[in-house]
Formats: sequence, C-alpha cells, structure tokens
Amino acid sequence: MMRGREVVNRIGALLAALLLSVLSAGAAQAEDGYDLWLRYAPLEAARAAEVREVTGPVQVRGEAGETARLAQEEIERGLSGLVGDTPGERSVTLSQTKDLTEGESWLAAELEGAPDGSFVIAADPNAGTIIVANDETGLLYGAFALLRHLAGDRPLPEMAKTYRPAMPLRMLNHWDNPDGHVERGYAGRSIFDWWHLPERLDQRMIDYARANASLGINGAAVNNVNARAFMLEPRYIAKLTRLADAWRPYGIRVYLSARFSAPRDIGGLDTADPLDPQVAAWWQAKADEIYESIPDFGGFLVKANSEGQPGPQDYGRTHADGANMLAEALGERGTVIWRAFVYSAEDETDRAKQAYEEFVPLDGQFADNVIVQVKNGPIDFQPREPFHPMFGAMPNTKLMLEAQITKEYLGFASHLAFLAPMWEEVLDADTGRGGTVAQVVAPAGMAGVANTGSDRNWSGSHFDQANWYAFGRMAWDPSLSSEAIAREWAAQTFGHDERFLTAAVPMMLSSRESVARYMTPMGLAHLMDTGHHYGPGPWVCDLPRPEWNPCYYHRADKDGIGFDRTETGSDALAQYAPGIAATWSDPAQMDDRYLLWFHHLPWDYRMGSGRTLWAELVHRYDRGITEVDAMALTWRSLAPYVDAQRHRAVSESLQIQQREARWWRDASLRYWQSVNGLELPAGVREPEHTLDHYKAFTFPEAPGQ
Amino acid sequence: MMRGREVVNRIGALLAALLLSVLSAGAAQAEDGYDLWLRYAPLEAARAAEVREVTGPVQVRGEAGETARLAQEEIERGLSGLVGDTPGERSVTLSQTKDLTEGESWLAAELEGAPDGSFVIAADPNAGTIIVANDETGLLYGAFALLRHLAGDRPLPEMAKTYRPAMPLRMLNHWDNPDGHVERGYAGRSIFDWWHLPERLDQRMIDYARANASLGINGAAVNNVNARAFMLEPRYIAKLTRLADAWRPYGIRVYLSARFSAPRDIGGLDTADPLDPQVAAWWQAKADEIYESIPDFGGFLVKANSEGQPGPQDYGRTHADGANMLAEALGERGTVIWRAFVYSAEDETDRAKQAYEEFVPLDGQFADNVIVQVKNGPIDFQPREPFHPMFGAMPNTKLMLEAQITKEYLGFASHLAFLAPMWEEVLDADTGRGGTVAQVVAPAGMAGVANTGSDRNWSGSHFDQANWYAFGRMAWDPSLSSEAIAREWAAQTFGHDERFLTAAVPMMLSSRESVARYMTPMGLAHLMDTGHHYGPGPWVCDLPRPEWNPCYYHRADKDGIGFDRTETGSDALAQYAPGIAATWSDPAQMDDRYLLWFHHLPWDYRMGSGRTLWAELVHRYDRGITEVDAMALTWRSLAPYVDAQRHRAVSESLQIQQREARWWRDASLRYWQSVNGLELPAGVREPEHTLDHYKAFTFPEAPGQ
Repeated sequence: MMRGREVVNRIGALLAALLLSVLSAGAAQAEDGYDLWLRYAPLEAARAAEVREVTGPVQVRGEAGETARLAQEEIERGLSGLVGDTPGERSVTLSQTKDLTEGESWLAAELEGAPDGSFVIAADPNAGTIIVANDETGLLYGAFALLRHLAGDRPLPEMAKTYRPAMPLRMLNHWDNPDGHVERGYAGRSIFDWWHLPERLDQRMIDYARANASLGINGAAVNNVNARAFMLEPRYIAKLTRLADAWRPYGIRVYLSARFSAPRDIGGLDTADPLDPQVAAWWQAKADEIYESIPDFGGFLVKANSEGQPGPQDYGRTHADGANMLAEALGERGTVIWRAFVYSAEDETDRAKQAYEEFVPLDGQFADNVIVQVKNGPIDFQPREPFHPMFGAMPNTKLMLEAQITKEYLGFASHLAFLAPMWEEVLDADTGRGGTVAQVVAPAGMAGVANTGSDRNWSGSHFDQANWYAFGRMAWDPSLSSEAIAREWAAQTFGHDERFLTAAVPMMLSSRESVARYMTPMGLAHLMDTGHHYGPGPWVCDLPRPEWNPCYYHRADKDGIGFDRTETGSDALAQYAPGIAATWSDPAQMDDRYLLWFHHLPWDYRMGSGRTLWAELVHRYDRGITEVDAMALTWRSLAPYVDAQRHRAVSESLQIQQREARWWRDASLRYWQSVNGLELPAGVREPEHTLDHYKAFTFPEAPGQ
Repeated sequence: MMRGREVVNRIGALLAALLLSVLSAGAAQAEDGYDLWLRYAPLEAARAAEVREVTGPVQVRGEAGETARLAQEEIERGLSGLVGDTPGERSVTLSQTKDLTEGESWLAAELEGAPDGSFVIAADPNAGTIIVANDETGLLYGAFALLRHLAGDRPLPEMAKTYRPAMPLRMLNHWDNPDGHVERGYAGRSIFDWWHLPERLDQRMIDYARANASLGINGAAVNNVNARAFMLEPRYIAKLTRLADAWRPYGIRVYLSARFSAPRDIGGLDTADPLDPQVAAWWQAKADEIYESIPDFGGFLVKANSEGQPGPQDYGRTHADGANMLAEALGERGTVIWRAFVYSAEDETDRAKQAYEEFVPLDGQFADNVIVQVKNGPIDFQPREPFHPMFGAMPNTKLMLEAQITKEYLGFASHLAFLAPMWEEVLDADTGRGGTVAQVVAPAGMAGVANTGSDRNWSGSHFDQANWYAFGRMAWDPSLSSEAIAREWAAQTFGHDERFLTAAVPMMLSSRESVARYMTPMGLAHLMDTGHHYGPGPWVCDLPRPEWNPCYYHRADKDGIGFDRTETGSDALAQYAPGIAATWSDPAQMDDRYLLWFHHLPWDYRMGSGRTLWAELVHRYDRGITEVDAMALTWRSLAPYVDAQRHRAVSESLQIQQREARWWRDASLRYWQSVNGLELPAGVREPEHTLDHYKAFTFPEAPGQ
C-alpha cells in the first residue's frame, strides 16, 4: 500500500498529465492557423527534457526597455508552451553588450561592429543560456531564434552562435488599398483597418508585428504602390502614427507608398515636376510633418511612370531626378525606395528589356538614401523567370530584390506552392558581374509583396504561411537552404514527428516546380487570362497593348514556340554578362527550364530527353498533374499528424489545385494543338473539353483585381 | 492524518479547480468575440450547483439523426463550459414526440399542431430535464434555449414551458456580393468564400449556422438583392449546394437573390418579360435544376424595378406578374420573397408614398407562395421612421418585415446602438387596421439585413453582435422586451455579474435613441452624406434625383423645417389608418420624436417643453452627445467585469463615437444656422469648425459602398 505522500505524488503526476492533455486538446481544437509558426506546441518528452537542461527562468540584465521586456515575455510564453509549466533548471539571460560582465567580454567582441539586430546565443554550462545583442531589437530577434531552435529538431548545441542579418532592410510591401481591398490579395481583406484608426487598433496589428519580428522583418510599406495621394494627408498621418507606435517595440519601421503627383493631387500645386522648387518644398514640408509624429518613419516607396502611375518622366525628368528630390526631403531620416518595374507600349521590341534600358544608364546618379527595387525577373513574378539583368549591372546603385509572396501567378491561395526554391534560384544566381544576386542586394535588402489578409490563417491557406516565413528567413540569411527553411517551418507549424516531416518537406520543396510545369513549362511565361490573372489564356491576343497579350510572350505558330531573345531576336540576352549570354544563347547548353524564355524553337526540335519539343512540353504538363495528385495523396496520409481542422482545409485546397492543374494543362494543350495542328503523343490523355469551352470561362468575381 | 482515499479526494478537488482555472484563463485570453453569445463561460458556484441539480448526462431517445446529435453535443459542450467537467446528477433527455412514453403523452399534447421548430422544456423531478419536439430542429432549438436559460440569471424553473415560433420564416438577408464585398457591410469582407466553394468549406460556415440555429433563424438569402445573374449558373449552384448541405442539419434553408433579367443576362433569351412563355420556361428549368441539387432550397428573394434593378415593369407588367411567374416556377417547393422597397424619380411628390401606391392595389393578386417584404419604415432604415403604412393595408397578401441589422444609417460598426428598441417600436405599433405590425407579419416572418463579416467578432464590433442576436430572438418571439433580450445577451456575452448587468443593460437600451438624437432628432431623416452614407450632409442638394438629396427630406428654410406630409403637403398620412392619421396630423398630439417626419414647422414653434423648435433641436443634439459621453464613462467603469481585449476594443469604438457624434451635431447645427440665421441658445457650445470645414470632408475609402 502506498503512503500518503506517494499517493499525492502519483495523483499529482496523473492529473498534471490530464491537465496537459486537456490543454493540448484545447490547442488542437483551436488550430485555425492564426498562431502561424509561433504555436509553441508541447515538445515530445525527450526533447523537452533536453530543453529544460539549458533553460529556466528568464531574466533581463540592466534596464529593460519595452522591446527587451517583449523578448522576455516571448521566451516565457514559448517555454511554457514547449515544455509546460515546469520550468527548466537553469536560466535564460538577455543582456545587451553594455551590460556584460568582464568575463563575458568575448561575447561583446563577437558583436563588435555587427549590423543592427545581430545577436549571439551562447551556452553557459552553469547558468543555462545567454542571449546578447548590441540593441534591444537584437534581444527580441534572439528570443525568437532561441525558440525556433528549441522547437525544431536540430541538436540544441547548434544554436550557440552569432547571428547577423545579411542585409539591412528586410521588408514587406503591402499592396493594400485604404478601402480594404488588397490588389493581388487572396487572403481576404486588408489587415489594416484604416477606417477605424487611429482610435481603434486591432489586435492583429500586434500579432502581425510579432510574427514579422520573429523573422527579423524590420519594415513594412503599408499601402499599395498604386497609391492614393490622400494617404499623405494629416488624417492618415494620425492613423499611421498609431501603427508606428504599436510596431516600434517590435523593431518595425513604417514606410508609405507615395503617389508622385501628390503635390498636385492634394497639395494645391499645378505641377509635380521634381525640379520645381515648390514641389520640392511641398515634399520637404510633408516629410517634416510625418517625422514630427513618427520620428523613425522609414521612408517612401514609389512606383513611378509604370502602368499609368505618375512620375518624373511626365515632366521630362529621369527616375533619378524624381527619387533624389524625395531623398532630399527625407534627408538622413529615411530612404526612398524606387521601383524599377517599368514597361510601356512605346518599346515594342521586348518588354523584358525596358527596365534595364531605363535604369542602367542612371547608375551612380541616385542619392545615397535611394534604393532601386528590382523584381526577381525581368517580366513580372512568373512561376519561373531568369534573374533580372539589372542585378550586377548597376555597381554604383543600391539595388534591392523585390519578391512576390502573394501568389498572383502561382495559383492564388489555393495552389500549394512553396516559393523558397524560386527565391533561392534567384538569390544564388551568379550575375557574372562579380557576385550572386544575394551579394548584389546585400547592401540594400529584400522586399516581399505580402500575402497577408483578414483570413483567419493570415495567408489564405495554411501552406502560404510558409512563404511569408521563408521570405523573412531568406532576407535575414540568403544562404539558408529551402530545405532547412521548409523543415523548421513545418516542424513549428504542424509538428515534430519525423514521419510527418519526411513526407511534408519534400512535398513542399517540389511544389513550385509542379506549378511551373502545369502552368508555364520550359520557360513559357505570362499565359494567364486577362485582368484577374486566374486560369489559362494562352489564346488571348487582342488586348490594346501588345505586351499585355499572352501571344506576345509565347509567340507560338505553326512552326514553333518561344520568344527569341538572342541576337536574331530581341537580343535581351545582351543585357546579361557576356559569359552568361553566351551559354544561354545555345538552346542545347542552357537549363531547359528557361528554354522558351530565350528561344523560339520548332515543335520538332529534339530535346536532350530524346523527345521532340512538343512531346516534351506535353510530358511536363502531365508531370505537373501527376505531382499534384501525389501531393494530395501524401497529404491524405499525413492525417494522423495534423489536427482535423487544418488537415481538412489543406485537403480541400488540394482538391481545387487538382482540378485547376488539369484545367491549365487541358486548355493549354488544346490551344497549342489549334496552333501547331499536331496530335498528342500516343497514350496521352485527351483534354476534357474543346478549346471554345475553355475560352468561354469568365470570372468577374475573381479575387485580387 | 487523512486516509489515502480522503487525500485522493481532496487533491482531486484541488486539481479539478486548478484545471478549471487554467481552462478559464485560456478562455479569457481568447476573448476576441468569435464565440458570440455561445461562450458557455463558467457559472458562479451557486448557479452551477443549481444547474447540476437539473442536468446530467445527455441522451437522445429513439433514432438520432444528425440534428439531434448536434443538439446533444451542444448541450454537452454547453454544460461542460457552464458547470465544468463534473456532470450534474440527473440527466437531460432529448425526445421527439413520437418517442415519448405513454406517461409523457401530455408533452405530445402540448405540441399538437405546433409550428415547425416548436419544443417543450420540462422538468422531471426524478430524471432531470426533458426537451421534446415534433422534429429534430425543435430539439436543437430546445438545446440552445436550455443553455440560454441556464447561462442567464432567471430562476431555473421558469425555463419549463412550451416554446413556439411566432412566425414561420426567420431569415437573414446578406447583401454580400460574389466578389466578397458586402454592400453596407462594416465588418470586413463577406463570410461567404464563394471563390473556394464548393471544394473548400470554411469553418465559419458551420459556426455561422450554429449561431443562427441558437436563435431559431431558419433561412438565409446568401447574396445581395442587387444580384449578379451568374450566381444562377451551374458553377454557383454547386457552391450553393455545399452550403445547403452544411446548413441543413442546423435547420437553415438557403435562398438566393435572383436578378429578374437573368433569362436575358445568362439564359440567351432576348426578353425577361414574365408573361413570355419562354421566360417562364427558363425559370422553371432553373428552379428544377436547383432543386435537383438542393431539395430544400428556400426560394428567390427579388429586388425588382428599384434603384436600377430590372423587373416586370420593364415590360409593362406588375410586381404581381413578376412574382407569380417565379412562384409558379418554384411551386410548392419554395417561396418568392418580393421586396416592396421601390421609389423612382417619376413620383416626385413624396418618396415615402410610392411603395404603398404600387403595391396596395395589388393586394390579393399574389400567389400563395409569394411574400412581399416591407421595410420597417417608408423610407430607408433611418435611425427612426414611423412604421410602414403598407402594414395592415394588404390583408390578402403575406407581408414580411425587413429590418436592417447592419447599421448603414446608425454609425456603421463603430457607434454603439442596440437596435432592439427600434424593432420593438415597429413590431408593437398598432396599424389601426386590426393588429400590430407583429400580428400582420406573423403569417410570414421577418428578414434582417445581416451585419456579419469576416471580422473576427463577426459584426465589426462586440456590441453589434447584440443586434444579430436581438433580431433572431424577436423574430422568434416579438413579444420579448428589448430589456429582456439585452439582459440575456449581455449575460451570455460578457458575464453574469449583477453589477455589470445593472450598468450595461440600460446603456444598451438607450443607445439607439442617443444616435437618433445626435444624427436625426425629432423625426428628421436622410441627412447623411452622399453615397457612402457616412457622416452628416444636410446641405447636399445637388444630386440628380431629388429624393437622393437630404434637402428633399428636411426642407429647411428661413422659416421652418420638416416635411409636410399632412393634407397641406404630400398627404402621405392618408396612407395610414384614419385614426392614426388623425392623431399624427396634429403636431401637438403626436409623439414629437416623429414630429418633423410629418410636419413642416416654424423655427419658433413652441414645443411641449416650452422651448422653441430651434432650441429643442439644439437641446436634443446636445443630449445625444452627453449620452454618448456617459456611455463611454460607464463602459470605463465596467473594466473589472470584462476581459481586457474586448474591453479595449469597445472603449476604442466609443472614442470614435464620441468624436463622430460631435461632428454630426456641430456640422448639422452650422448648417441649420446657415439656413435660419438664428443664434444658438445661451450657454450652448459653439460648433468647433465652420460649415465649409465640414462640407470639405471626403471619404473615398468609406466602407460598405
């Protein structure tokens, strides 16, 4: 018979287990995705025991500002979730370098001259774990890094090292309009409740800042680059101020997309000419007005002379004239981010060439606090593009990489496409001009067009959260592999079970390639339907601007398909470094995933596979379909490892993707056949419907327009 | 020293308490309003003990269909929340009348011939509590009624009675567009994710159905009455089918707003003339197609020949011609709900008269399965309108009451205005033609224009949930007082503390009157700014249609203010029963809250208060402001009784309301002064800005347009 105390202990343990299980069940019930990768779900017992051995009560050395306090609370919250309410036996210490003891001076040395936000995680065999940084934001980043590591599956000692951001500016661009509509948004309405600001601050604004901080994202341009001038009015500066105040403790600076014609639109001037002193004075006064309320305002993001937006060229001035005038208004206080996404009907030879042609001659003319923001590829966020030739071609200009997190061209929110491999492809690309793209943008940064929205899961689908996550992680450290990012995201977001990760991670890694295969195989691009960019429209050829038409891009005819960008064609290849241009000018030498981007080839061109180009194209479409079907099967098998609500949601999205992948393939094949008159290779499934059937689809209510 | 078993009991009790406190803490954290009035928060000990004495394990007699199973689960979930995981000692039995024992035949007798959804809650001194209904939906309603009563503060024995819905159709009208925009929606995007249906069914669709079922709401028209024809296409019928399947177990039938010109828009016909056999055949085929997939499809809601919508009058036919043709297509399977909201520039004498003039002559001509849906007042959901004169004037037509839950004219989602008193006012109004409005609509039902949206709290603000709740409760039982509804809502939504309820309930009850005072006092109406209906615009007088202009309604000039609807004016009063018209034609006899709706009076008209009309008007504006300030103070004092997140959210909304109430008052007074040239009474605060200042405001991004 047990003695009283034994009984108490035994029962205590049982009931603690019960408590834990109830809490877990509660968590499982609430798995709607809102918590993103910050769920801090309980670790399995062995890992939890290890974690307890290096953690414990959290303390901040010296005077703790609000950010340090947030770091402390985050670790407390995280540890409580990961290992339960029995704290570890050691401690976790947060210390700025100025508060280190003499014996810890080696930690300070690690961070000497390190960029803002850098931190060290170090083990102390007696005390537990210490996080050190030069600034409080570094402590907060360190807190999240610690928790990310604890929640992952890498050995704990690996977390002890120095962490430095690879580039100073890691920001989101929100294409959110003040009325709540998100251009190219597929996750509901804007998360920014401008209407009720400044009085009402939605809890989401805090949770958003926290999620960004967990990735090291330190800036957000809160409104669409197709900007409304009234957002520069006092009414909106008050709203923006409340946001800036809420985000400051999380290390996030607000940026505003500025409409270049604002001095005319709202300023009472009759010009927005950047060389007009009145215009410069207006912007100077506007900048002063903003800094009066928001001392750490980040600056202006500008889309100028692109797709109908006003700009300096309206007055015969250059992009540099426009950007420098705004840069002068901001002064040392902020940055002008000037987008290089320009194209116009005038240059009919090749849209892909225009940005380079307009910007490269301006190299060296931009002020120090101007960054030129360049999309990953020369067209527009297609499922696959070669890297933009501007990277490496403007050595005397700060260039920033613009990536699109929202999936405008990759299936909206319903297709599973993990985008890290796409970004890895561009970041790792050797420009042939003294560095990779990652190296070119390192002095500036990366911007991601956000996929956030009012949907409960933030991103429109659970797996799209991974793209927000991957963007932030890559902007902090572009040397991270897609695989590592997928693995740490999946572990935190769904669970640590090795059987789950072994299946889910490869599925994520191949997913974007599958989309490229069933939508735009072999370097084809811009084949989507008009306006809403939803579904296939390779037949579209009657839009008023030539470069709006899919037929402009694929150039398919009886004899062949593809855009000749070699010397015999638009010679866009000449914008790349000579070595690269030489390799790519030979269709046999180049990576055939880019083939038809650069070459117009006959349908019977013989591929390395031995198939004709036509047969290879069909083969890739079919492979895309097969892979999506395989994803759906894989996901079904993962039901035991995922809560029911999220499992069902992903399953249902995959059903949409399976249907739409077939639609892309079938409609595209029907169209190519109408052009080339060729039969499908033997054994290949006939498209389900006629070409006219697919052409008749309309989607007036498609999201994101 | 305690013996082992005692120790176990003691510790068990302690840990159960701990468990409960942890769970409650979890709930407190998650108080974002998503759970609406179905939070099932723990009862205080004494009430919990009482509840345990009449409840216990839940059982369903006989064969349990899905709805009965949902009823059982709901009670289990509710009891677990209210009294914790220690179940009561008795039981809760759910039984259809067919499964009653002989000894219980009195229960069956109670429900003999009772309308669908009726139920009895009865106490059984031995067994606990029994819920009996003729159908499973009644069991589900009974489950919710039981929990509502347990969670409230009325004595438990009072719940034992028979519950019968007062009217057969209790429905929501969603003005939601297929692209996710909600017309006059102030709670974010549409809750209906048409884009991803049918594959993806959002969890919200279940939670929505459950919330409606808890109130007895049994129908939903899922799309805007300004309808898009493509929602009748097969692509949308598939989407609708998935919704119908999901809602069926909750007793909710789907209705579709149908565009009258659909046979032309999508049917390939060149007419939509209701008397054209091809048109009738098209609708017949369409109805058959829908019923093939949705056997319990509710029917069509139609806005015809109103505000530019197509209708039978386009072909020289009457509303009855149009409605009856659709009714024939539906047959016994469904209902046509035909809106009486019509007005047009042709009838320039008085917009308030047109619906009556168009519809009353058609009395008796509508088919049996047609309901004419009439707004509460003759204009358009103003803060106060007299009841619509059509009520009582069409004894041979089924009339349904249309109320607006969304606050298009009462401050959007940021003003606190509990609307039950407004609806109570109209439901209780004696038509003078043999019954109250509630009695007139009893054979048909009530429709509420929903205030749901993608905002986490569903309604844009926590207190707007009360309007959804009140609509449902009143549609079930129009004899319920606003006070009773406010009390049961507040208790379930925030808590049972008497100190809280004593302050919060009166605040709710007076809130709508305050809004009427600072926006449209003394029967003024339609004074809002153009298009978005946000903020004051009494000066607007230049819109192309006369009845779009506020000046059309207030008719203020140097000499007086108000719309003369007596014999000397438009004589709209003649549309009311003679006794009512007689009383209201005398400004001294009538309720002065309607005064300027019916009378044009000089500014120095002497009011019952002894003040001049002008002084009284100013007085009412100021009283509105004072009351809003008092609400804000009251709410601040309630912080101890409300979780921090919701308390802060309401506080911040009240700040908006305080600012905007002043804006309404100041802008309106400045305008009236510009017209009447009068000084403000002594001691009255001067408006803050000039009239031009207020006139210059623009809000291009205002929600709900």
